[in-house]
Amino acid sequence: MQFSKKSPIGIFDSGVGGLTVYKEIRQLLPQEDLIYLGDTARVPYGTKSREVILKYALQNSLFLLDHHVKLIVIACNTASAFALSYLQERLKVPVIGVIEPGAEAALEKTQNKRVGIIGTEGTIRSQAYEKALQKRDATIKCVSHATSLFVPIIEEGLFSSKILEPVFDHYLKDFIQNKIDTLILGCTHYPLIYDFLQKYFSGQVHLVDSAKTTAQIVKQILQKEDLLFLGTKKKAQQKIIVTDAPERVRKIACRFLEQDEITIQTTTIY
Amino acid sequence: MQFSKKSPIGIFDSGVGGLTVYKEIRQLLPQEDLIYLGDTARVPYGTKSREVILKYALQNSLFLLDHHVKLIVIACNTASAFALSYLQERLKVPVIGVIEPGAEAALEKTQNKRVGIIGTEGTIRSQAYEKALQKRDATIKCVSHATSLFVPIIEEGLFSSKILEPVFDHYLKDFIQNKIDTLILGCTHYPLIYDFLQKYFSGQVHLVDSAKTTAQIVKQILQKEDLLFLGTKKKAQQKIIVTDAPERVRKIACRFLEQDEITIQTTTIY
Repeated sequence: MQFSKKSPIGIFDSGVGGLTVYKEIRQLLPQEDLIYLGDTARVPYGTKSREVILKYALQNSLFLLDHHVKLIVIACNTASAFALSYLQERLKVPVIGVIEPGAEAALEKTQNKRVGIIGTEGTIRSQAYEKALQKRDATIKCVSHATSLFVPIIEEGLFSSKILEPVFDHYLKDFIQNKIDTLILGCTHYPLIYDFLQKYFSGQVHLVDSAKTTAQIVKQILQKEDLLFLGTKKKAQQKIIVTDAPERVRKIACRFLEQDEITIQTTTIY
Repeated sequence: MQFSKKSPIGIFDSGVGGLTVYKEIRQLLPQEDLIYLGDTARVPYGTKSREVILKYALQNSLFLLDHHVKLIVIACNTASAFALSYLQERLKVPVIGVIEPGAEAALEKTQNKRVGIIGTEGTIRSQAYEKALQKRDATIKCVSHATSLFVPIIEEGLFSSKILEPVFDHYLKDFIQNKIDTLILGCTHYPLIYDFLQKYFSGQVHLVDSAKTTAQIVKQILQKEDLLFLGTKKKAQQKIIVTDAPERVRKIACRFLEQDEITIQTTTIY
């Protein structure tokens, strides 16, 4: 397998949520080729075990390597939480997860050092954010909750306050009692309900998502490894590939990327 | 592969929902050995394509055949909708889905011949219930809706009316306007919110789930094929096997089967 500055950046997620990360990378590095793999045949990862997630993450990465990517972004919190070091130990290309960037961003924002974390069952169970935060600052107080209904609500596009408010009350009340000043959106779907969350917390809580910080770290690593594409004439190629249900994905991807039309390809990796 | 009257009945589902069917079979046929396979490593099937569902359904069935089952129950609406005839054409043992029993039960209940159907995206997209109903009575009027948020709500155990009511309003209002008198619960999870649904419709709509009727049809087929176990001394063996996350399943299974303790085994079939 060969890769060079001209090679694409590979991004994978269990489904479509990682497109929020894809979008930020595309915006920050418009000259780079991108390949996004969404493992929609086996989504979600959030309720699965560590062993299964490791296996799927490795298969996804090997698929991207077959496309000669120069760097892999795990654009999925659950897979980042469980598989980041597992992939880094095995693969030649740099591998970047979304947990460390999210933790970095939260530390920049918090003033009272009380940080909330929301994510899937798997991400919360892994305590990956707590570890990433406390490794950097042992005085940080963390409160975390699995908010399992957020992903289906977002995929359904059920953004009515009548539905969201009682669900927010159920999951998020505790954060207000705990006086957090910063909340990590520990799932790549959550930026899509950013405005509703901000309203729920009356703008009193910093909402942190990893997408922007992850894109910045991708750029830093590419620079450091001398892998940044520096040409200007090339028209960047950007591919979105899924393992199942491309039509369903196309609709959701249009919403995620705020585009009217998107071409989705399909592959079988399992 | 050999099977006899003494062989177990095999039951599979994408996850834990099919335990509602398992429960009814166990109650009606307490002397029969049962093997339940929940494909929790790849749950849910409801958003996946026909091709993927066929593949998974066949793998699940072959796993059960390795355990010498005498009959297979597809205790999952989505898999029944897509894979029933596919499996029947290929496998030697009788295969029973939950769609036809559900349609039968609805036809017994409806008086105004206006039947509603709720289920996953896949089940509703397949129109399997409409076809099963209209094959039996072409004058039946069907109204169907995918109620995608019900499964995650049930798996989370979020049975507060504050959360359920706006979600019900979103999905079910239309059925009241359409004056249905019977609603098919086209997903094996839904019996767990039976009471809330009944309250929502003020007891004015017959709620039909396939679990009971499916158990009766299992009994009929076993009798017809001379495969019913008629002994009395045997202590029946009942196994629940999943493809991932046994601890998570154990908790949900206790709720589904109304038991304090359950042993869950794990297998790898993929």
